[in-house]
Amino acid sequence: MRTHRHAFPLLAIEFIITAALLSSCAGQPAPPGSPSFSRVVDLGHALSETDPTWSGEKVYSHEIVATFAKDGYSAGKFSTEEHFGTHLDAPAHFAANGVTVDKIPADRLVRPAVVIDVKSAAASNEDYRLTVVDIQQFELAHGQIPEGTVVFVSTGWDERWTDPARYMNVRNGVKHFPGISVEAARLLAGDRKVAGIGIDTASIDYGPSEKFEAHQTTMPLGVYHIENATHLAELPASGFTVVVAPIKIKDGSGGPARVFALLR
Amino acid sequence: MRTHRHAFPLLAIEFIITAALLSSCAGQPAPPGSPSFSRVVDLGHALSETDPTWSGEKVYSHEIVATFAKDGYSAGKFSTEEHFGTHLDAPAHFAANGVTVDKIPADRLVRPAVVIDVKSAAASNEDYRLTVVDIQQFELAHGQIPEGTVVFVSTGWDERWTDPARYMNVRNGVKHFPGISVEAARLLAGDRKVAGIGIDTASIDYGPSEKFEAHQTTMPLGVYHIENATHLAELPASGFTVVVAPIKIKDGSGGPARVFALLR
Repeated sequence: MRTHRHAFPLLAIEFIITAALLSSCAGQPAPPGSPSFSRVVDLGHALSETDPTWSGEKVYSHEIVATFAKDGYSAGKFSTEEHFGTHLDAPAHFAANGVTVDKIPADRLVRPAVVIDVKSAAASNEDYRLTVVDIQQFELAHGQIPEGTVVFVSTGWDERWTDPARYMNVRNGVKHFPGISVEAARLLAGDRKVAGIGIDTASIDYGPSEKFEAHQTTMPLGVYHIENATHLAELPASGFTVVVAPIKIKDGSGGPARVFALLR
Repeated sequence: MRTHRHAFPLLAIEFIITAALLSSCAGQPAPPGSPSFSRVVDLGHALSETDPTWSGEKVYSHEIVATFAKDGYSAGKFSTEEHFGTHLDAPAHFAANGVTVDKIPADRLVRPAVVIDVKSAAASNEDYRLTVVDIQQFELAHGQIPEGTVVFVSTGWDERWTDPARYMNVRNGVKHFPGISVEAARLLAGDRKVAGIGIDTASIDYGPSEKFEAHQTTMPLGVYHIENATHLAELPASGFTVVVAPIKIKDGSGGPARVFALLR
């Protein structure tokens, strides 16, 4: 009887524990391993021989060396410049002592992220550069950008990606596309201490730049860039996580990168 | 006495509930954008010309084409086979109608993950293959592997990475390293419907395999593989998220991949 007398209360207690766990965690990451996000947005273009390139020359090639039909398996090889397609610039790209792409710590590549939307300004000025005022206005609405954030600048320029001539937009030897100002670069890298800056154009320095002033400002401070990103317009202004995953080239100054936004 | 007799157990139960709640909910959805993990583990090797290759021939090269000291910026280029280094096999690698690497949906690349530890068995048998019993024993301890999981098989083989001859371990023209059995492949891909299978050897098919039976079993079911992974021994058996980020090669059968484990 003693055994039986205790059996039922123990079952009840088990139920209480389970109910307490369920009610307190309802809607939250329930089963272990469940990620606390509901949607993944791929912020990268596929790499293709017809993609825009910085020089206008072909810098990427992909060759299929085995096919399932003929060989029973498929395989290929490719060659590319590091700074092609949706790619990461490691701090070493523009800083004497900057880390190379393989040395960026993994926890600096998985970060909270925000998106500053300058599509409207860029639509009427192809040489638009993100300003300090743009950042201030963003922060008025969304709070100060925390240290270690990845800041994306959404210009809408990625709609030109499939037309390389319009994307690089060269006139009289000068490129024209939006970027960020050196003052904005200084505020983000120096004061806000961001981890990275991403943009949906070919460079965070705007097209006409000759000296890459924004690069020169951010990279000595350990900031990386994501260039030729896409789908930034699908993201919320804040409240999401980004995973930045550049190919891990030993001693590389950068490389093609997968970039995933994890949305709640 | 009766009251006293129950007082201690009730306190103990309260403690259990509180501890359970704390461990299960602590630190979750705090500020928006905060990721629900505390540590990122990089599961990939850096790509280097001295890395092991499948054929034993050189299939990867990296060239520095500009240096900060000489040119004011650093840049390089590289060429590689798709299936080199820590890399992903897309289903197209071994399935007639399998998707190529650029077509794997992003949400299939960010998944709950588990690790099945066969280091002990592999230490005494270099041709060890994960068995159905290994999976059953894992599930007895950790619950059934949910659909869409990425399953890592930890063999400990990655400690040989820096010595390509020991890593590929060829004797009389036959490779020797651990993998997974075709029956285990069938259980994971067919019954458990996993998203991917990762391993810290050169292939999920063990070294002596000639017909790649595990590949032939998983890939027609849409499962991808991560090969030449590392640091699996640092991971818990379950309760974490993995981000699998292969280079996005249009029409590629796979490619070098970053793989990050996000640990709670």
